[in-house]
Amino acid sequence: MANDEQAIRNLIATWLRATAAGDLSQVLKLMADDVVFLTPGLEPFGRKEFEAGFKGMQSQVRVEAQTEIQEMRVSGDMAYCWNKLTINITPLSGGDAKQRKGYALTVLRKKPDGSWVIARDANLVP
Amino acid sequence: MANDEQAIRNLIATWLRATAAGDLSQVLKLMADDVVFLTPGLEPFGRKEFEAGFKGMQSQVRVEAQTEIQEMRVSGDMAYCWNKLTINITPLSGGDAKQRKGYALTVLRKKPDGSWVIARDANLVP
Repeated sequence: MANDEQAIRNLIATWLRATAAGDLSQVLKLMADDVVFLTPGLEPFGRKEFEAGFKGMQSQVRVEAQTEIQEMRVSGDMAYCWNKLTINITPLSGGDAKQRKGYALTVLRKKPDGSWVIARDANLVP
Repeated sequence: MANDEQAIRNLIATWLRATAAGDLSQVLKLMADDVVFLTPGLEPFGRKEFEAGFKGMQSQVRVEAQTEIQEMRVSGDMAYCWNKLTINITPLSGGDAKQRKGYALTVLRKKPDGSWVIARDANLVP
């Protein structure tokens, strides 16, 4: 259980680093093939839409996020955590940076090889 | 597992019925003592704030919700489901009814007595 929690903490840290670095292929490794993202105002979307959104974003802005893990629990091959997120968005064109804050509830899944991936994610950052 | 899924479906159906009927004590039985609700624009809140919000709402509107369960998975004493929600809000004063639609991701917990309760809920309905 402690190993699982540490693996999930590492996953979140890797996610943040890879996002800041614009490393899409690394980010994609951290999510399940059938991942579902729920966000305000959009229909639920999966891996392909995430990929397109990431590329579109990377061409216009730099995104740096910080997360404060509020809670994490593991049960077998399922886990959840919820986080407080602070996201800094800096336009590559040199405009003013924006900061957004909010919460996310994430369900994770342990794969047969023992690694964890993001399976379902509800992101409430406006 | 099939019994757990059926128990969770029953919980959701009971939640909707009790909400429509304004039966707060029934609704409260369906959530964990340490339940956390995440919603857009509000800080995370728990049982007491839910109770106050429910009472305030009941004095002004009638709330009827429908839910389409998109997926449900169980692992030991943890489960998650995500739903498409349609919420009809009718002012008791006789004004126009409003309809809101959106999604929710819910984490559930099996109690020692075998019953399921809502533990963490991210509701993206605007």
